[in-house]
Amino acid sequence: MTPVDPVALTAALVRCDSVTPREGGALVLLQGVLEEAGFACTRVDRNGIANLFARWGAQAHPRSFGFNGHTDVVPVGDAAAWTAEPFGAEIRDGVMYGRGTTDMKSGVAAFVAAAVDFVRSTPPEGAVILTLTGDEEGDASDGTVALLDWMAGAGERMEVCLVGEPTCPEEMGDMMKIGRRGSMNAWITVTGRQGHSAYPHRALNPLPALARLVDRLSSHVLDEGTAHFDPSTLAVVTLDTGNPATNVIPAQGRATLNIRFNDRHSGAALCDWLRAEAAALDAEFGTVTELRFRISGEAFLTPPGALSDLVAAAVLAETGRQPELSTTGGTSDARFVRHHCPVVEFGLVGKTLHQVDEHVEVAQIGQLKAIYGRILRDYFA
Amino acid sequence: MTPVDPVALTAALVRCDSVTPREGGALVLLQGVLEEAGFACTRVDRNGIANLFARWGAQAHPRSFGFNGHTDVVPVGDAAAWTAEPFGAEIRDGVMYGRGTTDMKSGVAAFVAAAVDFVRSTPPEGAVILTLTGDEEGDASDGTVALLDWMAGAGERMEVCLVGEPTCPEEMGDMMKIGRRGSMNAWITVTGRQGHSAYPHRALNPLPALARLVDRLSSHVLDEGTAHFDPSTLAVVTLDTGNPATNVIPAQGRATLNIRFNDRHSGAALCDWLRAEAAALDAEFGTVTELRFRISGEAFLTPPGALSDLVAAAVLAETGRQPELSTTGGTSDARFVRHHCPVVEFGLVGKTLHQVDEHVEVAQIGQLKAIYGRILRDYFA
Ligand SMILES: [Zn+2]
Ligand SMILES: [Zn+2]
Repeated sequence: MTPVDPVALTAALVRCDSVTPREGGALVLLQGVLEEAGFACTRVDRNGIANLFARWGAQAHPRSFGFNGHTDVVPVGDAAAWTAEPFGAEIRDGVMYGRGTTDMKSGVAAFVAAAVDFVRSTPPEGAVILTLTGDEEGDASDGTVALLDWMAGAGERMEVCLVGEPTCPEEMGDMMKIGRRGSMNAWITVTGRQGHSAYPHRALNPLPALARLVDRLSSHVLDEGTAHFDPSTLAVVTLDTGNPATNVIPAQGRATLNIRFNDRHSGAALCDWLRAEAAALDAEFGTVTELRFRISGEAFLTPPGALSDLVAAAVLAETGRQPELSTTGGTSDARFVRHHCPVVEFGLVGKTLHQVDEHVEVAQIGQLKAIYGRILRDYFA
Repeated sequence: MTPVDPVALTAALVRCDSVTPREGGALVLLQGVLEEAGFACTRVDRNGIANLFARWGAQAHPRSFGFNGHTDVVPVGDAAAWTAEPFGAEIRDGVMYGRGTTDMKSGVAAFVAAAVDFVRSTPPEGAVILTLTGDEEGDASDGTVALLDWMAGAGERMEVCLVGEPTCPEEMGDMMKIGRRGSMNAWITVTGRQGHSAYPHRALNPLPALARLVDRLSSHVLDEGTAHFDPSTLAVVTLDTGNPATNVIPAQGRATLNIRFNDRHSGAALCDWLRAEAAALDAEFGTVTELRFRISGEAFLTPPGALSDLVAAAVLAETGRQPELSTTGGTSDARFVRHHCPVVEFGLVGKTLHQVDEHVEVAQIGQLKAIYGRILRDYFA
């Protein structure tokens, strides 16, 4: 049996148009490759989203190494600005171009290639499990969550899990993730009383109140960072009124916040804090402030230990770099997996993810396969 | 010759659809009435706007009493909400309904009726001048300003001028205007640097800066009022960003201010103040703030004296009320006339101006004619 070429597999995946929520042939392709290598595969689709569960070895074995990744990609964006066909996987000067080349079809291909090699060459005592989803870039409600729900019912377990998202900011091997900050949005509506701007005392302008609230929230230091986390951040992403008439004081003003928070905070506590700030403001101005929240994920940490040591040692051996143990960046499906088992993340350089002309150095795909192969060998050693 | 009936003339004017910038037949109608009474009339149209100059008596006579008014009206607004035909001048229970019944076709009709009566019954030593415009409710750049420009070139002068806008807030005779606050708008754009809300330190969010600026400007006490003026006011009328993406920090935020200012300020000084505040903000935040201004009118005052005494005495004699000498409210064309001669304003109750079901008590039209007639008699006495 010829080994799986991770570069060819990446290219084949990039040629699948799997913009969320489309499967685009990507999971079908992977299922074929995995089944040929002896993986038992189950499609775990939910609400029109395709997901794939694959296991080599015994069910619920105490030594079960898990991998999580996604085959869906974000839209092409400004197609005219691309210098390569977004679903073409064209290789120029050692660089492969295309949507998903870094985020994260290369990561999926590298792990599949490594796992197939591994189970064929040195069949382990234990199980290798892949949880592959087609809904990570969307609202993620029917992706990894659906897989984990199904696994709980089917008696499937991973002892540990590696998420293959691109984690390296600059050079191959410079960073892995051992947790993620939480993320939440708050939608704020301050209501006053409309009026004529020549008679402001007869109106109650909500905008000075909104401005003061935004100033206070933006100036507030949530924390100075913790052992493994950067300081929490609060970003006001929009302020809107939509009043075209300069002689009219509007009745309402709106703001939206995005908060990225570390393990000093919980989403619920932050909601309480925002409610208290809004109430203080209303008491000061006589306005009525309404708040709506969406908590995308709580902060979580897999404390440095056996799992992070395993991954870091493999990265060091293959790249000569000691990866930084980081919790920076946005969210990933690790926020769901962490409820199932310890989880860390490692993948290649993510500089161009979600951008026009997204691309990957072809050599990194082979390196990543080597790192993933070493992790598997060391885990089962 | 039958006297001009001010109620019938008001009704005839209301039936002209003279929504700015349309003449709608209103000035043509008035020209006919005035010429029949011996007024020399000149249409002073500019850029498609109709204006009418009318003089009875000798040109540039030192005793020249002027009147200023407008025949244009604001749009009907929510036509379905009217209980009367907006251009119907329907009278129900002693009340005439229609757009312009208070602002200010009744005022124009009352003065025309009073002036015609006056020059016929007791031809004065001096001149009576009417400056009637079709562009007061619009941007007013080709209305009273065009009349005054033309008068300067043609050697026409008013010694004093009465503007017939509705000035009484509650009861006939309760208020006249001896000045107006200035009004200006400022458009503020704060520019930072766009970025991802997960990495706010790599972006420069303009919204906290904008919020602080708005808070500072809104909290600032411009003054405590002056002898004849209320305190100046600053209203933030809109705050806008238009960013739909909660994971993106926007590059720009915008605010619009409306400032109504008294004789402690000039538009230019307020612009300087806003520029200084914006510069301080930029120094603090590293943002770039751009300002755009439009000064609609400076504050002005015709100090209490002969002209206001003349009008107040006539109001008292006809209504039993001593009118308050006020400078409140929005702007009017008095802001242009004051560069030509001393100007005060008196008209009827303006409660429903610009509203649905705008209406006037028919009796007030006759009362107003009587007041204007007494002012003319006393002026030339
Ligand atoms: Zn991804
Ligand atoms: Zn008016």
